[in-house]
Amino acid sequence: MHIAVLAGDGIGQEIMTEALRALDALGLDDLRLDHADVGGVAYRKHGRPLPEETLELAKTADAILFGAVGDPELDGLRRELRVESAVLGLRKELQLFANLRPAKAFAGLEDLSALKPEVAGAIDLLILRELTGDVYFGEKGQRTTEAGRREGYDVMAYDEDEVSRIAHVAFRAAQGRRKKLCSVDKANVLQTSVLWRKVVEEVAAEYPDVELSHMYVDNAAMQLVRNPGQFDVVLTGNIFGDILSDQASMCVGSIGLLASASLGTSTRGLYEPIHGSAPDIAGQGIANPSAMILSAAMMLRHSFGMETEATRLEAAVAQVLEQGVLGQDLGGSASTSEIGDAVVAQLA
Amino acid sequence: MHIAVLAGDGIGQEIMTEALRALDALGLDDLRLDHADVGGVAYRKHGRPLPEETLELAKTADAILFGAVGDPELDGLRRELRVESAVLGLRKELQLFANLRPAKAFAGLEDLSALKPEVAGAIDLLILRELTGDVYFGEKGQRTTEAGRREGYDVMAYDEDEVSRIAHVAFRAAQGRRKKLCSVDKANVLQTSVLWRKVVEEVAAEYPDVELSHMYVDNAAMQLVRNPGQFDVVLTGNIFGDILSDQASMCVGSIGLLASASLGTSTRGLYEPIHGSAPDIAGQGIANPSAMILSAAMMLRHSFGMETEATRLEAAVAQVLEQGVLGQDLGGSASTSEIGDAVVAQLA
Ligand SMILES: CC(C)[C@H](C(=O)O)[C@@H](O)C(=O)O
Ligand SMILES: CC(C)[C@H](C(=O)O)[C@@H](O)C(=O)O
Repeated sequence: MHIAVLAGDGIGQEIMTEALRALDALGLDDLRLDHADVGGVAYRKHGRPLPEETLELAKTADAILFGAVGDPELDGLRRELRVESAVLGLRKELQLFANLRPAKAFAGLEDLSALKPEVAGAIDLLILRELTGDVYFGEKGQRTTEAGRREGYDVMAYDEDEVSRIAHVAFRAAQGRRKKLCSVDKANVLQTSVLWRKVVEEVAAEYPDVELSHMYVDNAAMQLVRNPGQFDVVLTGNIFGDILSDQASMCVGSIGLLASASLGTSTRGLYEPIHGSAPDIAGQGIANPSAMILSAAMMLRHSFGMETEATRLEAAVAQVLEQGVLGQDLGGSASTSEIGDAVVAQLA
Repeated sequence: MHIAVLAGDGIGQEIMTEALRALDALGLDDLRLDHADVGGVAYRKHGRPLPEETLELAKTADAILFGAVGDPELDGLRRELRVESAVLGLRKELQLFANLRPAKAFAGLEDLSALKPEVAGAIDLLILRELTGDVYFGEKGQRTTEAGRREGYDVMAYDEDEVSRIAHVAFRAAQGRRKKLCSVDKANVLQTSVLWRKVVEEVAAEYPDVELSHMYVDNAAMQLVRNPGQFDVVLTGNIFGDILSDQASMCVGSIGLLASASLGTSTRGLYEPIHGSAPDIAGQGIANPSAMILSAAMMLRHSFGMETEATRLEAAVAQVLEQGVLGQDLGGSASTSEIGDAVVAQLA
């Protein structure tokens, strides 16, 4: 088990420390951890947010634990030097095309959501976002129109292979859940979506046990507010997934508890909390490490097939919550290390 | 005052009847109403969702009152015959580039929102969505990749003139409100957004009294759930606006009460409720005509500069709500015509 540990910026380092302690407490054999720089910290040390050695490590490791990147002081840099390019570069270079974002209400914490507790409490969905195509990676640039005006452009596109591989992941995920899949697109306007819908329908033929529906993205954004409990697995493209997965996380309310996985065709995956680098609270020891620990659990499950250990980690985090050991983000006062201690104690 | 009345499909006819009664009750001089077919009803009668004579009328009228289009039985038609093409065609042909979608909580109705009453109750925002550019109107189609795979594509683009004209509308709108403008884009990924942000900044120089901020669209989708009360005017492009404006409406909860205006450079505008044709309840006389009546009020304000009459109409709708004359969508039992009657009675 060779893990690339990319803690990154802001609270990334603090929460990673606790996730590694929790992993350690599981007493796993053959755990090899290699640390490398990514994001703003990598730019400051090496002049690039995704140094060559970091990328090499990520490519050779079995899995990547990723903290967070983001450094407001570096926002002014040109595109290739900004932290986003590290995120996009890792996804593309490792072909991590499937982003899994489970959003589930935590019992007792429904009140943290801006949604009514009964609405938030019903959330138990998985967003499957395509991560290496769409308007993110098409041709893009600045040009001059015939009328001599400045214009920015980005080409949105999906080919059938890109759609089909993520669709298969989504259908299989639905089979392991409540067997409902809602594919979100804008097929009444976009040709990219017309192909998307067609290919999803074709793939559906192989999964007769999964109930497939289609929804336009504007309606999906409404339904995620009105009644998010209606969704099981939501499949969508890169840009719509960017928007809807963040919206869904916020509907749950406790984004300090939400983890994510980005997978390719192999078992290699990248695992990260959905919250960001939170520069405002970095270095204070008050960040909630739970989402990072839960990301490590996802890693054990998806990259190493260690369902038992993954479940143990998740249960430990849940028990700590039930004990009322809550970080400031959840209305409590436990520090980063206190939460980590409590999780380790549970695992002992 | 020459008004093109395009009632459209489903509940469109029923709610339009009440809006016209309300307009009539205002006792306006020189009101000329010309009716024409649009949407599924137009397709069935004339073979096209936007017949030439309808488009001509819309182009020559001073304003367009638009009900709703949408007919599930016609969803299988090819693109140019589907109702969406009427919507997009009107926007493009009339160059209605500025879509105004106010979303405001109605006192006493906060509980209809899935958001907590104190969160929903604080909503008072205006979304300004660009309506004639972006990935909606760029080159699009199906093609074959070099590897021989099917691919769908759509070009997203904005030029500086398109951004600047909607930005001016947004800044002026902000001046008439709480003087806060939040421009939403995805400038960390999209070149279209990089230009968008640059031009918005340039236009901002002319409006020093307006406080401008920028937000990524994924964050905006989160903030609209977490704390929608933070927004005053939200400016965004066509596709992000499609998603965010529907999300914002649902946050308010009572979408039967929300109106919209689509404007160009002249005072000609198209006014429509944000809800759709609701085929499930069409013809039953139970649709809530309030949003249609409020759309007529927006028309009086924006196309005819009749602020007094617009306010009278809006006040009448608000009073009827306060009297507890509520449609089924708001938990009451008033019929379409009963709500219309009550509004007319208020105006008398
Ligand atoms: C940082 C940014 C490029 C990224 C994205 O848009 O994909 C982020 O928002 C995310 O969702 O992981
Ligand atoms: C019907 C459709 C083309 C349209 C759009 O996407 O603009 C609708 O969703 C809207 O928001 O008016």
